[in-house]
Amino acid sequence: MKIIIVGASGTMGTYLSNVLAKEHEIVKADRNGQEVQVDITSTESIENMYKTVGPFDALICTAGPTYVGPWVNLTDKTFLNGVEGKMMGQINLVLIGQHYINPKGSFTLISGALTHEPQKNFANASAANAAVDGFVRAAAIELQKGIRINSVSPTVIENSPQYFPFFPGEMPVTMKQLEYGFRKSVFGANTGQVIKPY
Amino acid sequence: MKIIIVGASGTMGTYLSNVLAKEHEIVKADRNGQEVQVDITSTESIENMYKTVGPFDALICTAGPTYVGPWVNLTDKTFLNGVEGKMMGQINLVLIGQHYINPKGSFTLISGALTHEPQKNFANASAANAAVDGFVRAAAIELQKGIRINSVSPTVIENSPQYFPFFPGEMPVTMKQLEYGFRKSVFGANTGQVIKPY
Repeated sequence: MKIIIVGASGTMGTYLSNVLAKEHEIVKADRNGQEVQVDITSTESIENMYKTVGPFDALICTAGPTYVGPWVNLTDKTFLNGVEGKMMGQINLVLIGQHYINPKGSFTLISGALTHEPQKNFANASAANAAVDGFVRAAAIELQKGIRINSVSPTVIENSPQYFPFFPGEMPVTMKQLEYGFRKSVFGANTGQVIKPY
Repeated sequence: MKIIIVGASGTMGTYLSNVLAKEHEIVKADRNGQEVQVDITSTESIENMYKTVGPFDALICTAGPTYVGPWVNLTDKTFLNGVEGKMMGQINLVLIGQHYINPKGSFTLISGALTHEPQKNFANASAANAAVDGFVRAAAIELQKGIRINSVSPTVIENSPQYFPFFPGEMPVTMKQLEYGFRKSVFGANTGQVIKPY
C-alpha cells in the first residue's frame, strides 16, 4: 500500500513512518521537504504535493498547528493558527486529495481529546479538533468510490513530555496505542469514526 | 435582564425576541440594523455593536451562516462561509464580548445536531457546529467573573420546513422546545454545555 504521511518529521509522523515502512511504501511529506514538501495552510502547496506523489492508497496526517497560550492572548488573529492549520489544513488535504486518491483509499486525520476534555491554554485546539471530527463524520457520507475517512483522537502522547504539565491527571497515550489507532483507520473498514486509541 | 439577541430578525431570533421581551429588556441585533446593526463576520462590526449597546447580562446568538450545497462544490473557498460565519463569527462574539458583558453574564451560541448526525450537503455546518461546541467547552474553563457559556444544538426546526427534505426522518424541534433550550442556558447555572432541546 502506498501511504502518504503528512507531518512525517514530527513526533508522531517519525514513529509511524518507521513502523509502517516495514510493510508499506511510505511517502514522507512535511514543511521542510526532506522527501516531499507540503505546507498544509496553502491549497496550492497541497495540490503540488498530490501532483508530485501521484496516485496513492492512504493519507495519514499528523500535522496540526494550533495556537497554544493564555486565554487573554486568544483573539481573532491568534485563533487563525488552528483554523488555517489543524482545521482547514486537514480539511483541504481531503477536499483536494479526493481527486488524487485511489478508489477504496482512506484519509486519516489527527484531532485530539481536547475536543471533549478541554484544558486551559488550548481553546483553539478544542475548536479545531472538534471541527475535524465533525467534518470527518460528514465527509464519510459524501466521499465516493469507497473512499473512507476517520480521525484519530489521542490525549497527550508519551513522547511529548513537554506537554504533561498542561494535562494534569491525563494518562498519556503510548506511541504503540497511537499506532493501533492509525492502523485501525488505514487497514480497517470503518468510516466516519473518531478513533480514541486508549 | 438585558439580553442581546444576534440574528434577531431570523426565524429563531424573531421567536425568541417576542417571547423573552415579555420579561426582559431585549436588544435586537442583525445585519440590517433595524435596531442595532451587526455583521458577525467582521470583528470591527462586533466591537461597534458592543460599544453601542453598553453593558448587558446575556447574549444569545441565532445567526450562523454556512455553505449548504452539493459536496462537489465544497472547496476551500465555499467552506469559508461557515468558518467566517457560524464558527468564527460566534467565537468572536465571545472573545470580544467578554470585555463588555456584566459579571455572571452568559453567552449562548447556536450549533446543531449536524455535529454528530451529518446530512448530505451540510458538511460545512457539521464542521462549524462542532467547532462551536468544542469552543464552548474550552471557553467555559477560561472565562472569568462567573461568565458562563453554552450552545443550543437543535435538529431542523419546525418553522423552517424548507429544510425538511434534507433531513429525512429527523423529527423537527418545535419553537417551544428551542425556547426551553435557550432558557436553560440563559437563566440556568450551567456552563460549557451543549444543550439539546429535544
